[in-house]
Order: sequence, then structure tokens, then C-alpha cells
Amino acid sequence: MWDRLLTDCHVLTMIPSPGNPLGLINNAAIGIHDGRIVRVGRRTELAGTRAGEVVPLGGAFVTPGLIDCHTHLVFGGTRAGEHARRRAGATYEEIAREGGGIASTVRATAAASVTELLDQSRRRLHALMRGGVTTVEIKSGYGLDPAAELRLLNVIRTLARSEPARVVPTLLALHALPAGADRDSFVDRMIEDLVPTVARLGLATSVDAFCEGIAFTPAETERLFEAAAAHGLPVRLHAEQLSNQNGAALAARHNALSADHLEHLDEAGAAAMAAAGTVAVLLPGAFYTLRETRQPPVDLLRKHGVAMAVASDCNPGTSPNLVPQLAMNMACNLFGLTPEEAIAGMTSHAARALGLADEVGSIAPGKAADLAVWRIAEPAELGYWLGLMPERRIFGGVEQ
Amino acid sequence: MWDRLLTDCHVLTMIPSPGNPLGLINNAAIGIHDGRIVRVGRRTELAGTRAGEVVPLGGAFVTPGLIDCHTHLVFGGTRAGEHARRRAGATYEEIAREGGGIASTVRATAAASVTELLDQSRRRLHALMRGGVTTVEIKSGYGLDPAAELRLLNVIRTLARSEPARVVPTLLALHALPAGADRDSFVDRMIEDLVPTVARLGLATSVDAFCEGIAFTPAETERLFEAAAAHGLPVRLHAEQLSNQNGAALAARHNALSADHLEHLDEAGAAAMAAAGTVAVLLPGAFYTLRETRQPPVDLLRKHGVAMAVASDCNPGTSPNLVPQLAMNMACNLFGLTPEEAIAGMTSHAARALGLADEVGSIAPGKAADLAVWRIAEPAELGYWLGLMPERRIFGGVEQ
Ligand SMILES: [Zn+2]
Ligand SMILES: [Zn+2]
Repeated sequence: MWDRLLTDCHVLTMIPSPGNPLGLINNAAIGIHDGRIVRVGRRTELAGTRAGEVVPLGGAFVTPGLIDCHTHLVFGGTRAGEHARRRAGATYEEIAREGGGIASTVRATAAASVTELLDQSRRRLHALMRGGVTTVEIKSGYGLDPAAELRLLNVIRTLARSEPARVVPTLLALHALPAGADRDSFVDRMIEDLVPTVARLGLATSVDAFCEGIAFTPAETERLFEAAAAHGLPVRLHAEQLSNQNGAALAARHNALSADHLEHLDEAGAAAMAAAGTVAVLLPGAFYTLRETRQPPVDLLRKHGVAMAVASDCNPGTSPNLVPQLAMNMACNLFGLTPEEAIAGMTSHAARALGLADEVGSIAPGKAADLAVWRIAEPAELGYWLGLMPERRIFGGVEQ
Repeated sequence: MWDRLLTDCHVLTMIPSPGNPLGLINNAAIGIHDGRIVRVGRRTELAGTRAGEVVPLGGAFVTPGLIDCHTHLVFGGTRAGEHARRRAGATYEEIAREGGGIASTVRATAAASVTELLDQSRRRLHALMRGGVTTVEIKSGYGLDPAAELRLLNVIRTLARSEPARVVPTLLALHALPAGADRDSFVDRMIEDLVPTVARLGLATSVDAFCEGIAFTPAETERLFEAAAAHGLPVRLHAEQLSNQNGAALAARHNALSADHLEHLDEAGAAAMAAAGTVAVLLPGAFYTLRETRQPPVDLLRKHGVAMAVASDCNPGTSPNLVPQLAMNMACNLFGLTPEEAIAGMTSHAARALGLADEVGSIAPGKAADLAVWRIAEPAELGYWLGLMPERRIFGGVEQ
């Protein structure tokens, strides 16, 4: 006898078949046991099964729990004042000269106690969970120093151990160069001290960098990627956000799980990503907040068959986004994704971006019973509303 | 002895004084009795008072409950499929030829039973209330026929009577011309039959129209306004959204409570609004969803001292917005409002747009104890986050 049977629902399994990109099963039921999905099919097919609890969902749609595969949600302070000044006409340069930008978040993060950081970050995580997220990637990166990065990764570990959501920790080793730091010795320390320590302590499952004119060069990024590989850690990359650095091709060469942002990606980059199976993570919240005008080349990604994920990018500087469904809306409205692409972007493709496709991101026997239940009439509504929340959220078979 | 004392909080009274545009009182307390605010001041000043319940708020910010002064939230169906087709390149004309646009919402609204309409509308209202809204304007307008408009106004009345939020009903008498209808006889019926009936039944507290090249002319709008005045109903207007029809000046001439949208407003219109005390209601959700590029002339509104309100415009076609704080974020990010302007836009100025400034929209003795409690460090965060929700919501002194 199973623990639970969800019934009277329409299920987006996210296992596509011809003419059915979302793997929709109408009038379906889902059997759950020991936190896993044991069966999904037409309600009539599951009619004879027995379960401790039968949960009729009144015709709602069930999706895999949303997967937010790119966030920086552990930070101190906010950048609300800076945002207001930018709207009033202050330039980036002026704000940077006054100590704003990433530097201000690094200071506020250092000034916050671990308890304060946990508190604030937990509130943001809870907001995403209320919005349907059951798996969330969280990057370090506001430490800019080995000890400070380890502190953030430990905060992320505490969140992972105390919350029902699955938390995927990423070491963002090369995010920004601290003011006044010697460039070479900073890069050395982050690569030679920090990466081995993080690998030894098991504090992250992948390594990330910001490859950009204003941040780190492809050569520095490549050194980091080689160190990560030497310590058994896969990589991902903030690539082609503000200019084309051929970061996506570099990431693909290192079999990166994902290359993220990609507004300035070119066709060679898209082809390299396709060949390597590197997922394109699109971050429309940053595009919106920065009032960017250059969209990522979605047509190129489609042409080459690169899987597209979509994420909140929850971070204080460029995407203070607390509602995951907004990322799907913005992916459709600002980047022209179809609702089907946006939904895959926060489920099956996001799972691939995290290397977790065997575990989450689709509804099939053996997968974790991480689910979101939506009171909608058709799947396209997931890309349509601004701020839709699921009616129920299920983490490992348990409603929270 | 008062019913409740909220304490350990920072209060945005929204009663400005020089250098303090939001009327901020730090380390404050609020006394509540019989659903009204009886006292607000420094916590130390209220230290000697007694209350049935003392509620320490842990340093949170308290604002007036948000006022969403422009919504169309009673409707059947959604336009999710149409949105997806527009993103994929279909034109308005193609969609209209297929029966899309407002016509499809009118059909779906007519097809829905009153119970279904109530159900769907209540879910949207609850979403706005979770987001901090305690007062919401709701327009009819998807009936396009006297009997159908009365049906919608009765649904709005049922919501008003069964929900703790204050619901302000508006008759949107001239919204769209039904396909195939005779223009003059349609306008006649809506003005000569519907307005007197609505006034007699007390089903709306103001009358609205859509004055636009694709909708109704200034002359038709003026006839409606004259009928409204003859029946003691104030007016408001969808004006200057897609072109300059001099609708704002027309509205001002009729002492309209508000003129709404205003992307194409000119200086004469702004001056007329200022002279008449007509509030400018800005609707960035529609600007965002339609991917418009022409912003309302915020500098002109500032120059002439026109009060600016901000609203969700919750509607199926152009702003399916369920999170009121998003309207404040978009007003800042897309229209360049300051956070202070955006906050006034959903509190004190929105109250003026509804003719309710004596009752709601500020925190002062005698006002309704409609409040939202926000876990933030500074007021600017209300314009900064994407999808921030209040920690507590208080309707007439009662937490819901
Ligand atoms: Zn990032
Ligand atoms: Zn409207």
C-alpha cells in the first residue's frame, strides 16, 4: 500500500513525446511512497491501487516542484537605496565610486552575523518555496576571500540541512576583484587555497565564475576550471552577459553543466554548448532590473538544440526576485520563450543544469515526490500571470 | 483601554512633512480601537497606554494597507493562450479576427456561472490581499450590455460583502463596442438605461470609460460623464493610453477623481488635471505586458503637482498581475518613480483617486486600522523587491 495517492488532477510529467512537449496526462493520478513517485498515469489506470491517504486535487495541474537553478540568495543588506539612485539618474560609475555595487553587498555580508545571514536568507528561501520551488541552487560569492566564502558555504549547508527544499551549493570562486586587491594573488588564492578546501569539505557540488570584461578573463576562468576538474567538481559559468568573451565555448570545452545569462552569445558558442550538452540558463530578472535591451539569442539556442533553463537569479544587485513564477513570465514576455519552454526551463532543463535529472525535474517512477499543484485551466497560465503561487507544495511526498 | 497596541515598529504614516515625505515615525506604536486608529506616535509617548493586546512587531515597518485603485479583476477565462500567440509573433489584428482580445473575455465571462465568477475573482482578490491590499477598486466592463454589466456589479457587491477588504465598485460603462453592434444605440443604452439603474441600485460609486481611437470618442465620453453627474456619480477615465485624445483634460473638466494610464498625456492635460485635483493613476503592469516603450510623462506630472497613484490594473488582457508590490517595483523600474512616490501611489494618493482619503491611505487617528506590516530595513525596499509580501495584514484592526 502506498503512502499517498494524488488524484483528480492533470499532470505535466515533463517527459515529452511527439505532440506532447510537456508530457501532459489529463485526468491523472500519482502514487507516492517513501518520498518517491511510484506510479503516474491516467486516473482510471490507478483506480485499483490502495494508499494510506487519497488526495483529490479538484482538477488542478501538477508539475514537478520548480527548480531554481541560479540564485545568490545568501547575502547581507539590500541594494534598495542604490536602485533608487540609479532610477534617479546616478551612473554605475558614480555608485561604484561611493562604494556601491557588489562591494556594498560584500561589506554588508561581512558585517552580518551568521544568525542574521541565516535569518534573511531563510526568509528569501521560504518566499521561493511558497512560490513552488522545491530545489534551489545557491551560490557563494559575496565573500571575496577564502575564509569568507567558506562562511557563506556553511550558511548554505545549514539551510540545506534545516529546510525541506533541496539546496544545491555552488562555489562562485571568481565573482569580483576586491578593491585594492592584487589581481594575480587574489586569483591564486581563490583557485589554489579555496577550491581544494571546498572539495575536501564537500561544501559545494560545482564551481562557478563571472567571465566578463569587468570581472575575470577567460584565461583566469580556465585556470579555475582546471582546478575544479582536478578536484572532481563540475563547473558552470556566468558568460556573455555584457559582452562576448567566448565564455560559453570555454565552458563547453570544460563540459560545464551550464552557461548562464548569454545575452551576447554567438553561434559558435551555441554550437559548442549543444555539442557538450551544456544547458543555457536564462535570467530575465536581471535583464528586466537592469533595463537591458539585448536579449539572449533564443533562436540560435533552439536551432542548435541547446536545452534552456530559466531561473530567478535572486540576488541583491540585479534581480531581487522572490517569486519564481515571475521568471517564467519574464522569460515569455521579455525573451519570447513559449510557455512550454519556460516550464521546462524551471523543471526538466533546470534539473539538467544541476546534474540532477535522475532525481528531480520530472514526474516518473523513482523520481523524488517534489511537486507543485497549480489552480489553473491550462499550462500556458504558468507563463502568463505575474506572481502566480501554487495552491500546494509537496517536498519528498510531504505537503509543507 | 484600547483593543490593541502595535509596538516596536517604524510607521509610514503617509502624512508628509518637510524632509519626511512618508511621514516616517521611527520606534513607533499604533493604538487601535473599534477598527480605527486612535493614536500613532513614538513608542515612548504611548508607553503609558493600556490595550487588550500588545503586539510587538520586532522592528518591522508598518504602512497603510495598500490601495489598489484600478483593477478589472472580475472576469471569466484567461487570455494565456492569446499571450503565448502574441509572443510567437501573431498580431493584434490576427488575434482579433479569431475572436480574441476583449471579445474573448466577454464571451468567457458570459459563459461562466455567477458561482464560477465569484470563485475565480475571489482567488485573485485573495492574492492581492495576501500581497497587502486592504482596499481595492473593481470595475465592471466585460459585460458590454446593461444586464451583463449589472450581473458583474452584483458579483462585485457579493465580494464586497463577504471579504474583509474594502471593495470599491466602478461602472466601466464604455469599455468596448461589441462586434456587430450599432454604435449609437449601444452608447445610448449604456448611458440612458445603465447609468440610472446603477445609480438607483447603488451598485457603483463612480463611472469610467475607455476614451481611445479604438474605443470611444471624447464626445461619447462626455455624454456619459454628464449622465453620471446627473445621477450624482463621480467619474474617472482610461485616458491617453495609446494616443492623445485630450481625455485627461476632458476628465478634469468633469472633476474626475482620476485619469488613468496617461502614456500620451501632454502638458495641457497635466495642467488641467492639477487644477481639478484629478489624480494620475499609472499602470506599469500594462506597459510591461504590452512591451510598450512610451512612458507616461512623470516629469510633467511632477512639475504641475499632479498626485500620482500606482495600481496593479489586474486584468486578463494586459496586466494579469496578482502581486500588488510588483506594481510599485515596475513604477520605479519602468517609469522612474522614486520609492517614496510609488509608496504614496498605493496608499495616500490611491485613496484620493478613490475619494476615500478621509478613511484610508494614511495612519492617523480616526482612519480605518487597515495596515500592512513589512519585514524590511528601509522603505525603499517596497520599490525594490520583485514580489515582496507583507508579514502581516490587518483589516479594520483584525489580522487576517
Ligand atoms: Zn548570477
Ligand atoms: Zn483599466
